[in-house]
Amino acid sequence: MPSISHKGRSMPESPIRKLVPFAENAKKKGRKVYHLNIGQPDIKTPQVALDAVKNNHLEILEYGRSEGSEQYREKLAAYYAKKDIHISADDIVVTTGGSEALMFAMGAVADYGDEIIIPEPFYANYNGFATASGVRVVPVVSSIDHNFALPPIEAFEELITPETRAILICNPGNPTGYLYSREEIKKLAEIVKKHDLFLITDEVYREFTYDGAEHYSVMQEQGLEAHAIMIDSVSKRYSMCGARIGCLVSKNREVITTALKYAQARLSSPTYAQIASEAALQTPQSYFDEVLQEYSERRDLLISELETIEGVKVARPRGAFYCIAELPVRNTDDFARWLLESYQYNNQTVMVAPAAGFYSTPGMGTCEVRIAYVLKKEDLKAAVNILREALKVYPDKE
Amino acid sequence: MPSISHKGRSMPESPIRKLVPFAENAKKKGRKVYHLNIGQPDIKTPQVALDAVKNNHLEILEYGRSEGSEQYREKLAAYYAKKDIHISADDIVVTTGGSEALMFAMGAVADYGDEIIIPEPFYANYNGFATASGVRVVPVVSSIDHNFALPPIEAFEELITPETRAILICNPGNPTGYLYSREEIKKLAEIVKKHDLFLITDEVYREFTYDGAEHYSVMQEQGLEAHAIMIDSVSKRYSMCGARIGCLVSKNREVITTALKYAQARLSSPTYAQIASEAALQTPQSYFDEVLQEYSERRDLLISELETIEGVKVARPRGAFYCIAELPVRNTDDFARWLLESYQYNNQTVMVAPAAGFYSTPGMGTCEVRIAYVLKKEDLKAAVNILREALKVYPDKE
Ligand SMILES: Cc1ncc(COP(=O)(O)O)c(C=O)c1O
Ligand SMILES: Cc1ncc(COP(=O)(O)O)c(C=O)c1O
Repeated sequence: MPSISHKGRSMPESPIRKLVPFAENAKKKGRKVYHLNIGQPDIKTPQVALDAVKNNHLEILEYGRSEGSEQYREKLAAYYAKKDIHISADDIVVTTGGSEALMFAMGAVADYGDEIIIPEPFYANYNGFATASGVRVVPVVSSIDHNFALPPIEAFEELITPETRAILICNPGNPTGYLYSREEIKKLAEIVKKHDLFLITDEVYREFTYDGAEHYSVMQEQGLEAHAIMIDSVSKRYSMCGARIGCLVSKNREVITTALKYAQARLSSPTYAQIASEAALQTPQSYFDEVLQEYSERRDLLISELETIEGVKVARPRGAFYCIAELPVRNTDDFARWLLESYQYNNQTVMVAPAAGFYSTPGMGTCEVRIAYVLKKEDLKAAVNILREALKVYPDKE
Repeated sequence: MPSISHKGRSMPESPIRKLVPFAENAKKKGRKVYHLNIGQPDIKTPQVALDAVKNNHLEILEYGRSEGSEQYREKLAAYYAKKDIHISADDIVVTTGGSEALMFAMGAVADYGDEIIIPEPFYANYNGFATASGVRVVPVVSSIDHNFALPPIEAFEELITPETRAILICNPGNPTGYLYSREEIKKLAEIVKKHDLFLITDEVYREFTYDGAEHYSVMQEQGLEAHAIMIDSVSKRYSMCGARIGCLVSKNREVITTALKYAQARLSSPTYAQIASEAALQTPQSYFDEVLQEYSERRDLLISELETIEGVKVARPRGAFYCIAELPVRNTDDFARWLLESYQYNNQTVMVAPAAGFYSTPGMGTCEVRIAYVLKKEDLKAAVNILREALKVYPDKE
């Protein structure tokens, strides 16, 4: 085949998915692999959502409205009202997953070469969306030693340049599990108002908070209406990751008008998934109570088990279903691959996500992994035990 | 509300959707509006696809593989083989509509500020995808006087600069209905090979060719494997626009590897839609025969009716389900809006798409409209008649 010069921009590789071929190989060798690497919950999707799709009466699967159906947006607004978030259907653009909402938000606020400040470690695909959009990610370090709390205001202010357009946070955080307090949101509100920036908050894990902690949304902050853009998704809330429905919410008309242009260019979000998402809004509270109870127990088990492993440091998450753990190894990229390629314990092994991909500062996170607690307790316990045994024999220790 | 400087890139407005509010107003006044403006077919989706979704047994709606399921891609490859397009499952990345495949293609071949040459008039959303990706669209004019045939090779070569990365064509064309001949594809192949460019062809209307004409895919052209990128979609083929499934196909590994990184960043395409799309591959040939017969009759009716209107010029489409018509008015933007705001014939009116939005050269297409023949014959006839009557009384004639 003749060669042709390929000069597309350099998209980063997904740190979560790049080990997949090694996991597949391990499985081909007959090994059981515990997946601690990906945020795919094992929780059942609410029956009401599944049934709505099975019982649909569509005869022509037509394009929907680019911004999402009026009816779905009305119902979404009502759902938010119950969370003390007061917006109207017109403040919502329905998107193809939270992923697309993030793309729209970056494109709407930033021109090519503009900058967005993000506390790291952050959801790795922010790098991909930024690269696709030509936006520069400027990281501000949050540290495991402070449980990944909001970095000091000065750290943000040092990074603000004439090209800065927004600060992006994830609340509760993937991969940290950190839940920002009301005070921290207020601090961020001060900075963005002072420097005329947007505050984009990815709240796809809103429902997942533990120890009775309450989530404080950026949309609840008075006086921040012109600055705040909220990203949301049905993926985690209803364990409907394959639906691909999310939304972008803002009271800033210019932002909504611009996001709508992006939405119109791609025509509409998936129709079946919107049927499921609309029905999912009827999910009974008991579903969430059970799910939360389950995740809370998983977290407690995971953290306490990890803490018994010599040399492991772990930040206690108060939201989402991930944690960052520091391991006594030189490089978690190598370690994660070794687990899949060369290690087995009773013919079982574990897949973890090396954390370097969640940082954009080179050299950061090389001794950390992200662990998702999306497996049932006995599996989680078995998986941590494999990690313990593996660390005993891994040759390339710190 | 405080103001905040909003400096996002300037996304173009969709010419197809921007008149929607005026159409809604007309409907509120009790008027019937014939929609000739949008490529939303009135054809029933194949039952086998609808049934597959109704009969699904999913309990957890999980993320799929980013590149699409192995099984669906295998079956897609078999479908293409029947069209004399010989590729393997690994040459396919399943996307969220042809729209997303176009975004991935542009991002994969072009860096910010790079150029892509496109014969105009072209599918208006190419402008949106290019803007979102930071790619410059460089138009080369094709003219209604030559029925929108491929512009001369010299016209392309004059536009090639060191920043040029690809030529993008739509075959059969939206909005022109033009079907490129084998010879024209071979000419394009020569240019892209000579200048080390990619040839991206949007073939979402592949099935829709008339008068016994055969579609020649860029993937059939020998020796072009490294250069060719094909965009496809289930939207039009199976009247499944709301599914949101398409794909990007290339034998160039670097292109597929890069497209996959985009796919991984957004996680997966919609699961229900993929179930429908996989089942749709079993649609019997009789379905397509009927659909094609129907579109062919609609086209004949539309063209012959339009030709009886004084001052109207129309290019005869040989594919897709659109045509461009030149009208004896000064500005079709104004005319299209007037039709919705101020005109009625027996309490009915028509919505057409002003063609200027399908050009990127300013001033082009101002006397043209795009008409989609996606309505049944009697409606099409009624709609053209309204256009005829409207032109008799429209004040701002050419
Ligand atoms: C923090 C965060 N934001 C956004 C997403 C995107 O989710 P989706 O596109 O499925 O809504 C994810 C998925 O894992 C995530 O963890
Ligand atoms: C030429 C062309 N390409 C691509 C698309 C995108 O279609 P979809 O995203 O529904 O596959 C369309 C839709 O009208 C089109 O006309």
